Amino acid sequence: MTVRAAVAGASGYAGGELLRLLLGHPEVEIGALTGNSNAGQRLGALQPHLLPLADRLLEPTTAEVLAGHEVVFLALPHGQSAAVAERLGPDVLVIDVGADFRLRDASDWERFYGSPHAGTWPYGLPELPGGRAALEGSKRVAVPGCYPTAVSLALFPAYAAGLAEAEAVIVAASGTSGAGKAPKPHLLGSEVMGSMSPYGVGGGHRHTPEMIQNLSAVAGERVSVSFTPTLAPMPRGILATCSAKAGPGVTAESVRAAYEKAFADEPFVHLLPEGQWPATASVYGSNAVQVQVAYDAAAGRIIAISALDNLTKGTAGGAVQSMNLALGLDETTGLTTIGVAP
Amino acid sequence: MTVRAAVAGASGYAGGELLRLLLGHPEVEIGALTGNSNAGQRLGALQPHLLPLADRLLEPTTAEVLAGHEVVFLALPHGQSAAVAERLGPDVLVIDVGADFRLRDASDWERFYGSPHAGTWPYGLPELPGGRAALEGSKRVAVPGCYPTAVSLALFPAYAAGLAEAEAVIVAASGTSGAGKAPKPHLLGSEVMGSMSPYGVGGGHRHTPEMIQNLSAVAGERVSVSFTPTLAPMPRGILATCSAKAGPGVTAESVRAAYEKAFADEPFVHLLPEGQWPATASVYGSNAVQVQVAYDAAAGRIIAISALDNLTKGTAGGAVQSMNLALGLDETTGLTTIGVAP
Amino acid sequence: MTVRAAVAGASGYAGGELLRLLLGHPEVEIGALTGNSNAGQRLGALQPHLLPLADRLLEPTTAEVLAGHEVVFLALPHGQSAAVAERLGPDVLVIDVGADFRLRDASDWERFYGSPHAGTWPYGLPELPGGRAALEGSKRVAVPGCYPTAVSLALFPAYAAGLAEAEAVIVAASGTSGAGKAPKPHLLGSEVMGSMSPYGVGGGHRHTPEMIQNLSAVAGERVSVSFTPTLAPMPRGILATCSAKAGPGVTAESVRAAYEKAFADEPFVHLLPEGQWPATASVYGSNAVQVQVAYDAAAGRIIAISALDNLTKGTAGGAVQSMNLALGLDETTGLTTIGVAP
Amino acid sequence: MTVRAAVAGASGYAGGELLRLLLGHPEVEIGALTGNSNAGQRLGALQPHLLPLADRLLEPTTAEVLAGHEVVFLALPHGQSAAVAERLGPDVLVIDVGADFRLRDASDWERFYGSPHAGTWPYGLPELPGGRAALEGSKRVAVPGCYPTAVSLALFPAYAAGLAEAEAVIVAASGTSGAGKAPKPHLLGSEVMGSMSPYGVGGGHRHTPEMIQNLSAVAGERVSVSFTPTLAPMPRGILATCSAKAGPGVTAESVRAAYEKAFADEPFVHLLPEGQWPATASVYGSNAVQVQVAYDAAAGRIIAISALDNLTKGTAGGAVQSMNLALGLDETTGLTTIGVAP
Repeated sequence: MTVRAAVAGASGYAGGELLRLLLGHPEVEIGALTGNSNAGQRLGALQPHLLPLADRLLEPTTAEVLAGHEVVFLALPHGQSAAVAERLGPDVLVIDVGADFRLRDASDWERFYGSPHAGTWPYGLPELPGGRAALEGSKRVAVPGCYPTAVSLALFPAYAAGLAEAEAVIVAASGTSGAGKAPKPHLLGSEVMGSMSPYGVGGGHRHTPEMIQNLSAVAGERVSVSFTPTLAPMPRGILATCSAKAGPGVTAESVRAAYEKAFADEPFVHLLPEGQWPATASVYGSNAVQVQVAYDAAAGRIIAISALDNLTKGTAGGAVQSMNLALGLDETTGLTTIGVAP
Repeated sequence: MTVRAAVAGASGYAGGELLRLLLGHPEVEIGALTGNSNAGQRLGALQPHLLPLADRLLEPTTAEVLAGHEVVFLALPHGQSAAVAERLGPDVLVIDVGADFRLRDASDWERFYGSPHAGTWPYGLPELPGGRAALEGSKRVAVPGCYPTAVSLALFPAYAAGLAEAEAVIVAASGTSGAGKAPKPHLLGSEVMGSMSPYGVGGGHRHTPEMIQNLSAVAGERVSVSFTPTLAPMPRGILATCSAKAGPGVTAESVRAAYEKAFADEPFVHLLPEGQWPATASVYGSNAVQVQVAYDAAAGRIIAISALDNLTKGTAGGAVQSMNLALGLDETTGLTTIGVAP
Repeated sequence: MTVRAAVAGASGYAGGELLRLLLGHPEVEIGALTGNSNAGQRLGALQPHLLPLADRLLEPTTAEVLAGHEVVFLALPHGQSAAVAERLGPDVLVIDVGADFRLRDASDWERFYGSPHAGTWPYGLPELPGGRAALEGSKRVAVPGCYPTAVSLALFPAYAAGLAEAEAVIVAASGTSGAGKAPKPHLLGSEVMGSMSPYGVGGGHRHTPEMIQNLSAVAGERVSVSFTPTLAPMPRGILATCSAKAGPGVTAESVRAAYEKAFADEPFVHLLPEGQWPATASVYGSNAVQVQVAYDAAAGRIIAISALDNLTKGTAGGAVQSMNLALGLDETTGLTTIGVAP
Repeated sequence: MTVRAAVAGASGYAGGELLRLLLGHPEVEIGALTGNSNAGQRLGALQPHLLPLADRLLEPTTAEVLAGHEVVFLALPHGQSAAVAERLGPDVLVIDVGADFRLRDASDWERFYGSPHAGTWPYGLPELPGGRAALEGSKRVAVPGCYPTAVSLALFPAYAAGLAEAEAVIVAASGTSGAGKAPKPHLLGSEVMGSMSPYGVGGGHRHTPEMIQNLSAVAGERVSVSFTPTLAPMPRGILATCSAKAGPGVTAESVRAAYEKAFADEPFVHLLPEGQWPATASVYGSNAVQVQVAYDAAAGRIIAISALDNLTKGTAGGAVQSMNLALGLDETTGLTTIGVAP
């Protein structure tokens, strides 16, 4: 099987990472590449690391350009995917890397994004309970946010096993590519190198309702989430430090067992041996997630920590993994668990 | 008044930062500089940024070398300060930058450090309630740990005002200088650049009992602390993200008011205007602490975040601030609130 | 003596560094702060590291606002200084941190900047032969470019002593703050972290004629300069690696002697002991320059390397040093040779 | 064809990168992994990014362990390869990633390495004139040094076309992984982040004679090399800025034409379009080399700049490329020209 795939939004960081992965995917032929403000430019000027595509030209993001592909990836600013998707036809596999179709609750969407809700598509996190079944054969996929991927994978085993109380506290550090390629003063290298700083504190980050949605579904009750994202001086990577109060009777052994069970057969999520902790460098450019968990008996809390590459497993790698499932391919096709380190 | 000050452990990061600050202190003359493995070497080879001291030679750390100074700073590996201090006489101001005299509870010390407890000295965090009185005129000072400084300043106003429940959850990112100058593989530039990773997870970090001690004293009840430190790809800086459940009746206004009151007259702790968040780059090389606080109504938690320079306010600047109080000088002498940025 | 100083362009990196230094200058009172697009904003929102000025408001850059100060620093985009300067009166000390008045040759200016030449002011590099005399009592100062400062200090002793042929080859690495605070895609943290890249290759960089001007004046003949600047993943610092063919009879000893003589009495330029090499980290935030020189007998070249902080000695520190000379103050007033490291 | 390959020195940076590439090589099965001080440890503890090999144990580096493989990679400290290689038999393809067999001149070796010369093996830089022929079918390969790879590729077209005088001036910036994994104080993250510094100035770097050997062979006369390496604050990457005086009659067009001709058919060396410059980020983790060249008419010099990943094309990727040629495989098997960026 070879499918032709188009990438809308090929000049951004998510689009670039999609192309990096698709270039190595044995069943994909890369079709149209689009960008709006950059239409007409050589990709080599915008994504100089994608040498085999250096002479390809960006086209405008229109339904005509995107037509005739079996798969279309949408890496567009939020709010723009629905209009494109509805013109692509029900037989095209449309994978939205943006936020538009992630949330089930329209009021959550409207509160956090301030626009009408476009709908809900099957959610591209196969590792969640029931996650694979929702994706197999689907023609629409909503790729999760990078933070929700890291947080949901770190915490769901505790909730699935009934070990944690329904109040999660999360502090995550992200590399700057998570903030995109649009130039803003606070994202300048001069500003971010040597600095850690938080943003969206106090519940305001748009990824919060998505985390609540995922964890609540597993827990069978509403899980509240206190989420603080921070910007770290590195280009890629998310380290999510997540904790919740342990329920009665929890022990270090029961916590370990729950995580071993949850990830035993997962190709991309790797529960580290006891005593070893995740590092974002270890998953640089890979689709792997490193997870470790501890039970702090003195504080009565379960602490689960995950590391992933926000552009790979957190965005484009997750998108390709879901594509594989939707197309009936082996889930790991074209993806690696090997990081580029040091 | 001019005092002569010796620095034991002048070749390390804490010692270097002490010298950087003392060189700019109008009432201090720098006396003996000692180091054990580096005795006999030029300081210029070990601390090339301290140009005015480049030709000074390191002497061995002995009581004879340290005698004859009004002030002695001890920047030694933990467990070594007591033996030196007891030979210095009761009239010498001895300021221990290490951990030996911070904890009040001997069993805490023994559990976390594995050696007999040396005692408890006045604690060098003037901003805590009663903090200044304990230091004025004292001849012994235990300089707080860098993480406990950041965490205690972020959270004590909430506890002092009775706004927070007695279970604190803390995730802090530290620059690599906090891990010291002894070369270890995981601290190589190749390993840390581009990477975030946690360590001492689950209650094992030695700074945890110090945080519990400080917060409990303010709260009037035992505060449990879940503390996760992480290593960030930057040389300096701590960003501490601290939270606790809000008690009944707490509002955003009551939280803000408590923090405004706590820091209204503090020369070094700066509560940022609403909407602005701390960044470690803003306090690079300065003794200032940036604090911000939010009330997350949906999650029912108070989130307080502080940024400081782990070597300045978190170590050497805090030491000089305490020295000033102990000597009866203006507390801010020789210290700055101006960071080196970008 | 206390002078009132205004800073035009206070929201940029050069302006911020000027304020950082002036805040610590015992003879300066900070007057008006101006900015065009940012007029009306709190300085604390734009320069959060300058805590003592956080509540100051930016005013527009007009002659009326700048009037009534003994000293006016102009940190404006090139081409804008002349119009402001001519309205300030001949008794005001005007220090242009921009490029407008650095070059003596009008055709050089026009070729590299594409606009009419505004004139030539006394050049603010006191360490050059005759440099101090030109500045003492002057009412106008053109602050050198950051690269020309680093390169001229590294190479002039070789030319002054007649040791080097008149063809210099220079490769310099600069931190990103040298490119300013205007957000551009290639200056994003995501792009610069982990990357080295050249720019302005082949003689196109605007600092090239300034280097030629300085070195030729010392050499007494025209010195050609091949200059390649590179962008390094750090916020501050310039490392300039400069070389030239050695003339006949040159030895390692004659080279060393020339450099020792050139810098023997300089307060800010430090010739390192043999075997030790400059590092930009050692001069972070300081006005010091570290220089080292080698004679490569096999290649027949003199290699001179300098490290400085592009914002301090390379811009704002150089400006303050010149101000001191122009006002008749001790040249080192308000400046430090102590770096912030690690 | 499937060959079994052993890696001696699997715990270091070169060994880790070899394994990263060999894991993706379709014709290689990974056999024994050895390390001396780390023998007996899990690879997952030493190279946590190589997830598929996490449970493999390191064995001691002995001829017995390395026997029975068609290919053996030696990533050992210099001076140790000969003793191992001579016990491996003439039919085993032995690829030395170290320096032992690179130099043809025994006196060069002895002067720079201080030990007896082990010999000279076919040199693994296929892009040099005659380079491929020397490797095809060979059973021994000396992998070039990372700097000589970058420099030789940047400059040889100018010498092959007779455009440049025989005196090259080179300044190169390298990421810290080039200095290896042995912990030393000056390689700590705290020291290297935010800093650029030179080392081995004045002709002392061991890669200098290798550059002279390569360029002289192409030029047909002895080329002198002035080489200054600098340490840059990034984990990977080399940016080599190389220049030489242009010979008589050289023009921008003749320079461009020489480079276009040299690299027209090269799979890994990419001459960038005019106006675009190399960046190490663009080749992160890839085997590609970006090259650009300019003719500075005013200075009369040709400036050629290359960017590569010191661990990939500069070490392990170059080794795999040579292995492919030696085994008769397509030269690009298992290698990519796609970088991981941003």
